[in-house]
Amino acid sequence: MSQTSPRSASSARPRFHAQFQSFEETADGSTGPARLAALRAELARRGIDGYVIPRADAHQNEYVPPGEERLAWLTGFTGSAGLLMILPEEAALFVDGRYTLQAATQVDEAAFTIVPLAKTTPEKWLEAHLPKGASLGFDPWRTTLDGREKLARAVAAASGVLVAVEGDPVAELWLDRPPAPVAPVRLLDAVLAGASVAAKLEQVRTALAKDKLDGALISDPHATAWLFNIRGGDVAHTPLPLAWSLVPQEGRPQLFIAAEKLSNAVRDVLAEVADVRPEQDLEAALSAFAPGRTLRLDQATAPVRLAEVVERAQGTVAKGADPISLLKARKNAAEIAGMRAAHLRDAVALTRFLHWFDGAAPSGTLTEIDAVEALETFRRDSGLLTDVSFPTISGAGPNGAIVHYRVTRTSNRQIAPGELFLLDSGAQYPDGTTDVTRTVSVGTPTDDMRTHFTLVLKGHIALARAVFPEGTTGAQLDPFARQFLWAAGLDFEHGTGHGVGAGLSVHEGPARISKLGHVPLEAGMILSNEPGYYRAGAYGIRIENLVLVTPQLVAGGEKPCLSFDTLTFAPIDRRLIATDLLTAPERQWLDAYHARVAAEVAPLLDAAARAWLEAATAPLV
Amino acid sequence: MSQTSPRSASSARPRFHAQFQSFEETADGSTGPARLAALRAELARRGIDGYVIPRADAHQNEYVPPGEERLAWLTGFTGSAGLLMILPEEAALFVDGRYTLQAATQVDEAAFTIVPLAKTTPEKWLEAHLPKGASLGFDPWRTTLDGREKLARAVAAASGVLVAVEGDPVAELWLDRPPAPVAPVRLLDAVLAGASVAAKLEQVRTALAKDKLDGALISDPHATAWLFNIRGGDVAHTPLPLAWSLVPQEGRPQLFIAAEKLSNAVRDVLAEVADVRPEQDLEAALSAFAPGRTLRLDQATAPVRLAEVVERAQGTVAKGADPISLLKARKNAAEIAGMRAAHLRDAVALTRFLHWFDGAAPSGTLTEIDAVEALETFRRDSGLLTDVSFPTISGAGPNGAIVHYRVTRTSNRQIAPGELFLLDSGAQYPDGTTDVTRTVSVGTPTDDMRTHFTLVLKGHIALARAVFPEGTTGAQLDPFARQFLWAAGLDFEHGTGHGVGAGLSVHEGPARISKLGHVPLEAGMILSNEPGYYRAGAYGIRIENLVLVTPQLVAGGEKPCLSFDTLTFAPIDRRLIATDLLTAPERQWLDAYHARVAAEVAPLLDAAARAWLEAATAPLV
Repeated sequence: MSQTSPRSASSARPRFHAQFQSFEETADGSTGPARLAALRAELARRGIDGYVIPRADAHQNEYVPPGEERLAWLTGFTGSAGLLMILPEEAALFVDGRYTLQAATQVDEAAFTIVPLAKTTPEKWLEAHLPKGASLGFDPWRTTLDGREKLARAVAAASGVLVAVEGDPVAELWLDRPPAPVAPVRLLDAVLAGASVAAKLEQVRTALAKDKLDGALISDPHATAWLFNIRGGDVAHTPLPLAWSLVPQEGRPQLFIAAEKLSNAVRDVLAEVADVRPEQDLEAALSAFAPGRTLRLDQATAPVRLAEVVERAQGTVAKGADPISLLKARKNAAEIAGMRAAHLRDAVALTRFLHWFDGAAPSGTLTEIDAVEALETFRRDSGLLTDVSFPTISGAGPNGAIVHYRVTRTSNRQIAPGELFLLDSGAQYPDGTTDVTRTVSVGTPTDDMRTHFTLVLKGHIALARAVFPEGTTGAQLDPFARQFLWAAGLDFEHGTGHGVGAGLSVHEGPARISKLGHVPLEAGMILSNEPGYYRAGAYGIRIENLVLVTPQLVAGGEKPCLSFDTLTFAPIDRRLIATDLLTAPERQWLDAYHARVAAEVAPLLDAAARAWLEAATAPLV
Repeated sequence: MSQTSPRSASSARPRFHAQFQSFEETADGSTGPARLAALRAELARRGIDGYVIPRADAHQNEYVPPGEERLAWLTGFTGSAGLLMILPEEAALFVDGRYTLQAATQVDEAAFTIVPLAKTTPEKWLEAHLPKGASLGFDPWRTTLDGREKLARAVAAASGVLVAVEGDPVAELWLDRPPAPVAPVRLLDAVLAGASVAAKLEQVRTALAKDKLDGALISDPHATAWLFNIRGGDVAHTPLPLAWSLVPQEGRPQLFIAAEKLSNAVRDVLAEVADVRPEQDLEAALSAFAPGRTLRLDQATAPVRLAEVVERAQGTVAKGADPISLLKARKNAAEIAGMRAAHLRDAVALTRFLHWFDGAAPSGTLTEIDAVEALETFRRDSGLLTDVSFPTISGAGPNGAIVHYRVTRTSNRQIAPGELFLLDSGAQYPDGTTDVTRTVSVGTPTDDMRTHFTLVLKGHIALARAVFPEGTTGAQLDPFARQFLWAAGLDFEHGTGHGVGAGLSVHEGPARISKLGHVPLEAGMILSNEPGYYRAGAYGIRIENLVLVTPQLVAGGEKPCLSFDTLTFAPIDRRLIATDLLTAPERQWLDAYHARVAAEVAPLLDAAARAWLEAATAPLV
């Protein structure tokens, strides 16, 4: 009666479920042509020839509420990035490399032409396709200043006319459009926030004074959440309330937020530090504040509409970076403590998962969805999981080579022995946000897999071990993670690291470790270190830890230096390491990292998982 | 009677002299106040309150002819970079870190305030110091479009007026101003050029067509020299004739050059491919060409004056990079062959020098100037030296820590045992340009010297060994050369590498290996690899080779890759290497490099030098 792994893994499956991630392809593309025709009629009624529909809300959020999913409603395309250009005779859906295939399965290509962004930009396409003299409408609430500038150049080159469209032509047709979310707002515990709203306001005012600004419109809701020490639940995977704020150099700030989101208790606390007003008041408030004043508007998130309000009121728009972006990126001691606690908690869940997976996977019966459900369940076991920080990327074999793969019931794949399995996931806890990738071997890996994994690992270690002077940017560090792949004629087509928020967004600016990372790294910033390698049609490899930028004393050094302290604890699959490709310092780093993982995590595990972890973190032989 | 080294080194000295480098401080600062007063009177006569005098000629050349040395004539300051702002009550001389001390010894600080550029920019200073409503004049021939824009912003911020000044107020007072140079122009041998003027014109036209341009004004004389396969001698250290050219998309190009520089034979050859006209015709020709046309003007070298001519004639100025800059940077096979030959010849001279120095220096009687004279003499012995490619940097002990040190009779220092000696030099030969730095130990180095030298060497090797995909920029590679210094809390405050011309300028764009190197490296480009370390008041270390960007095949690779082939052959001082700090691949690189140096150079030396070289290039033990 002894059942070995196939059945026991199979029977273990019902234990797990995913509450924060769906595997369904929700949108329906079959209604696309009819909806497009109706929208064209609506545009004609308004006297506009063309119209641009970005996948953006008024805040340029990464995750948008259901009522902002215009693109999905209209076309059926559910990707997280895209842009639709509707002209009288054609409608082009621009998608990046990760969504070219998905778009083709979701939209009706008789009505919509799918244009890969690798082939052309929407602006270049517009120059060639917009009929001479035609008018192109855009949504001034969902288009940024930078975005309008690009459109304006393209439309001018095509001898057309660019028109800001009042109202929302899509919403007029979308009768069952979900209402704006009104999730309750909670106050962030002072112990987790580490700084009062008053102290944060002082920091913002200092930044404004440095740039000789009279105030700032805060269009990024992450920034408003940080400033007022509030959290919410209006979008998926990021605990933020949709809101705006206006921070003057002198006087009380104004917070614009739907009244339904605030309990009396929360409202009372907020009213101590700000004028709390409904969102509908924003334009009037801006108009009242602007005359004769210079106001910072963030060029990457502020809508054209609000810039126009400022300018119509005789105010001056100072385009530039959100002053909170950099302040928020430098975590304070309380935020760092919260992130450390969240990471240790997450390490327990991930280690339990890896232990379970190691036993269950060799049977060949697990699927990618099984893995997602199991991992989320282990995280929920902590009792503190509030969400996953993004939909888990669970890619077996060739699916691992799709960098932003998201498993669906259709794509779901059996994880077969001999394959690599890539798992990129993260959690939201009240005290912190995690993001971690491990690539594990199911069964015996090939020599190529081990070589490629080790090249990626060497890059990961080079970055983890880097010491660098203050002022160094992520762009300068990025090549350290690539050098060993380069030497083998290989590379990976994504950045090496992004900023991570403390109990906010898992993708946070302004610093990043990539060719475009021109912001100097500063102590307190938290970034990912995630080099990879993707062999198309075969397997994907990525090794990701979060790291904290930390001051580094160097004996005999002349420059104030920084280095990275690793926050993420989870074993790196030793079966995939070609030990002979590692230098002595690289081996030392890996063994020391594993010793730290064992020391921190093992005491928090049951006996079976602890034994497994101790074996998985034993020194390399 | 046997005389040992001290005397023999001393008596050997008269053998050597420097023909292409002066050690005198030529300018005289004592006349500064009187000249400044006269200039202020001249400005008042013209109704201008202030005036900007850059150290620039109309081409923004690095080396300018004597008649363009306005700054030296007026103030006594002879540095190679600087800018003077004359206001009614004050005159500020802006200099960078390398010239702060020199400026203080050269100019009369009662008349001129020396302002280090590290403290402020001329523009910020202007905002604070220009009296409200005052007019500031600038020279539209010696100010670029970018330069004017910066001035305009600053003057506007100070509520002043920016005025382009006709004529040259300084020249009016400078009665013995040297006339413009008219060095004869020679044709570059077709074997060395490797491409005909017609072929090069075709390349330029293709580049113009790509950017939809009707033509380009070529303001950089290096670009004109490259295009027409001509060389000259109008400025020091770079074999170029001062000239302009106008290259239309269709039709014959025009070359503007003083008739006195052209023999009939040269003129006849040039007339086959271009309309050859005197420089004075430039404005009229531009004016005739411009109407209705779009013309590329290089924003970094084109004078404001010529942009105004284009615009007044109803032409459109397309600011951007000189289209020749990138074409010239990608050396063709003939240029590469010439550079290789020049480098081998130069290696012989440098090795003979190092051999001689190794015998003579321990006596402690040599000076920095002795070294410069000896090295130039060894180079002249080749019979092919046409110039040094820049004034040799010959720095003993603490002078080595001054990055752009130039020895003068006043600063000249005895090279003492126990010191490091840094020698950065280069040559112009008819077939190529060299630039090489070696740091050698005189007597026994300290442990610190060896450690620091080895950290610099490890960075040099990391860059020399780098393999990287096409599209990689110099900014991405620069950190490879710094990583080991960073880990020790150290760094160097200059770029790691600059482009080098083939028989042209030793400093050439557009690619470079530095934080600002945003141009992708391409096969055929030649750059320097020159990390360093400078211990203020003690010693300087720099190790510089020139490297050729070369396609690199990688078995199993997926990306077209590039790597560096080293062009410079000279031993790297093994006495300064802390062997235990090198990894096995680093030792292998050094030994292989030394073996190549010995194989290439030893056969070209006499027996004594050959024996010395063979010892100096023996494998590390």
